Amino acid sequence: MVSPPGSRTGPDPLDPTPLDAADPLAGFRDRFVVAEPGLIYLDGNSLGRLPRRTGERLEHLIHEEWGRELIRGWDHWMDLPTRVGDRIAAAIVGARQGEVLVGDSTTVNLFRLVGAAVDARPGRGSIVAVRDDFPTDRYVVDGVASARGLSVRWVEPDPVLGPSTEGVERLLDGDVGLVVLSLIHYRSAAIADLPAITDAAHEAGALVLWDLSHAAGAIPVDLASSGADLAVGCTYKYLNGGPGAPAFLYVRAELQERLRPPIQGWIAAHDVFAMAPEWERAPGILGFAAGTPPVLGLVAVDEGVSLVEEAGLEAIRAKATALTDYAVALHDAWLAPLGAELGSPRDAERRGSHVAIRHPDAERLRAALADRGVIVDFRRPDVIRLGLSPLTTSFGEVREAIVRLRDLLATA
Amino acid sequence: MVSPPGSRTGPDPLDPTPLDAADPLAGFRDRFVVAEPGLIYLDGNSLGRLPRRTGERLEHLIHEEWGRELIRGWDHWMDLPTRVGDRIAAAIVGARQGEVLVGDSTTVNLFRLVGAAVDARPGRGSIVAVRDDFPTDRYVVDGVASARGLSVRWVEPDPVLGPSTEGVERLLDGDVGLVVLSLIHYRSAAIADLPAITDAAHEAGALVLWDLSHAAGAIPVDLASSGADLAVGCTYKYLNGGPGAPAFLYVRAELQERLRPPIQGWIAAHDVFAMAPEWERAPGILGFAAGTPPVLGLVAVDEGVSLVEEAGLEAIRAKATALTDYAVALHDAWLAPLGAELGSPRDAERRGSHVAIRHPDAERLRAALADRGVIVDFRRPDVIRLGLSPLTTSFGEVREAIVRLRDLLATA
Repeated sequence: MVSPPGSRTGPDPLDPTPLDAADPLAGFRDRFVVAEPGLIYLDGNSLGRLPRRTGERLEHLIHEEWGRELIRGWDHWMDLPTRVGDRIAAAIVGARQGEVLVGDSTTVNLFRLVGAAVDARPGRGSIVAVRDDFPTDRYVVDGVASARGLSVRWVEPDPVLGPSTEGVERLLDGDVGLVVLSLIHYRSAAIADLPAITDAAHEAGALVLWDLSHAAGAIPVDLASSGADLAVGCTYKYLNGGPGAPAFLYVRAELQERLRPPIQGWIAAHDVFAMAPEWERAPGILGFAAGTPPVLGLVAVDEGVSLVEEAGLEAIRAKATALTDYAVALHDAWLAPLGAELGSPRDAERRGSHVAIRHPDAERLRAALADRGVIVDFRRPDVIRLGLSPLTTSFGEVREAIVRLRDLLATA
Repeated sequence: MVSPPGSRTGPDPLDPTPLDAADPLAGFRDRFVVAEPGLIYLDGNSLGRLPRRTGERLEHLIHEEWGRELIRGWDHWMDLPTRVGDRIAAAIVGARQGEVLVGDSTTVNLFRLVGAAVDARPGRGSIVAVRDDFPTDRYVVDGVASARGLSVRWVEPDPVLGPSTEGVERLLDGDVGLVVLSLIHYRSAAIADLPAITDAAHEAGALVLWDLSHAAGAIPVDLASSGADLAVGCTYKYLNGGPGAPAFLYVRAELQERLRPPIQGWIAAHDVFAMAPEWERAPGILGFAAGTPPVLGLVAVDEGVSLVEEAGLEAIRAKATALTDYAVALHDAWLAPLGAELGSPRDAERRGSHVAIRHPDAERLRAALADRGVIVDFRRPDVIRLGLSPLTTSFGEVREAIVRLRDLLATA
């Protein structure tokens, strides 16, 4: 059994109180609904909490807009995909105005951009993707590749450190048309080197598509200055857009007219109400739209993004680093001696906003933690994922969660 | 100027009072939010009204489920696409359980099914579609055809009566892999002959895909007994699912394993949390899913569908027929003499739940009607579309709308 921290002499380096007291983002927790204050919710990277203002905004949308304005609401709903997209561009992913669109799921957006990208590199027979990337990314790439007779070259990543730049470079040559990978790995939280991998892909003449699902709203991303071509991302994790909220896509301005969106939607037509015989595509990012925008989800994303905007990504990243550093320190002190292993990079620079703890009993431990009021994710084969959402998670919660996990391991 | 009906002798055949008094569905109007009782809303076929219960259900979802249950809500959200799909199957489109899935937009669903269908008919180089069908249908078909080097054969429909069975048959031969058309035309409300066209397509060895957007919730549809292969449809019209609510898709059970969904989504994987290396597709209709289900939209669709279920499609169809017959009679009495022309079939059997009135000034008239508290749609080049939603529209409203239109025409 590990000594309780109180038995040390001098100030306890693992005491969360001074950390919470000094946290400049601590006040943001009150901006969210916390229906069960005793619940330790470390799963905001699967589904972020409900911002209070989102509840109000949705009620207004439902009763005052849908209920009262009816069809006339479309006068101000119609540009939500680009309006919220521009907000994400500026506040979340470092893109320029007119480069981000919100709508459809991450899967559908991936499908469209992977398809458009490989079609824009005719004669190149391969896509590079990452062996243990999130299933959607792998499955969509596989599907597009097999439909077009292309092959997939799989990067073999380190399970903790993720895909290295060299690991990607090794697979690049003149036959590769596209590289697809996640900026932050869903299991380990490893951060890939976006500028270096983007440069390497470009040097080989390939396009690169970044999945920002675990990064958007957690770390500053700079798509514009890194020259990234394409990206997609999820809004229901750190952007708190709600269950199944619409995802976003990014297409670099210089590429927009050169790519052909595979789904020719009415909403992406140049003049929607012309109902013209031929699909003349809308200019810019709107040309990548498909069907009628999902209004409920879009306004929830708008509110979620505005909270991140208000807090600022630098402050969010600083707190995420402090939270995950703290979780790593607690792991080392209390969990490692009981057989756990860190499944995330030790170097905070290379780690996103969650911490993976590996243990052979991870699946059982997740359920036992839930019974004890701590919500975390299990990811096969052996990972407990602690999602630390900087706007809502306190250092005290991290400690208490790990205390409960320690107790479970100690009594196992 | 036409004589006001009061000047006739005997009971006025155009008096709405007895019609409203005898309407068995009149009580359903109270189940909807009617925020502006004086507003005559004849656009429920663009965006249906907000059902009261939907407002309550969404508030519960937002605060009690998302806000309180957080990630645990997925225990009961995950099967919404198939659960609401089964409800639509049974109550709305005459399909069997396990044949309908809700999610994504009509556009994305069309794209997937058109792609899967033509891939299932290799060697056939043509798709049959309808020249003046809704833009999404034409654009998606065009896009899929051009990406695969197929050609499109266009049915030339009658602008009022829509595509005839003979018009479709004329284009069918052994080179046609798929026929795509709307059951109810978005402008004229003409109903296509679903069983006959389905039979004709099958006789030629082609599959058939029905777009039910203007039919779902307005007329009884019997996909199962007609042998229809594929369908898509919209939920924010007569199903009152709200702005941008997710659409549905139908794949006949016998075809499900033979079609390859072009978008290989994580949610459509056999064991979602296995995160397996290869996409092993979920059995049945779930294999056509893509990304994370849009929960807010799905529960709104569920409520909207339950109202239609409760009212019953036979009663809804009977009222729609009475409403559109009444609108046609008023048109003939008051509008035709002032230069309007009926843009919908005269035979109620061949007419959906809206009435198209053609006039060269239609665009201006729509705006003038809006200024006078009557909301209708304009559809190029010359159509005013009166959407008559049986659950919310009264005969009195139809009359008052046409009185105001008559006055506009008379003073033009």
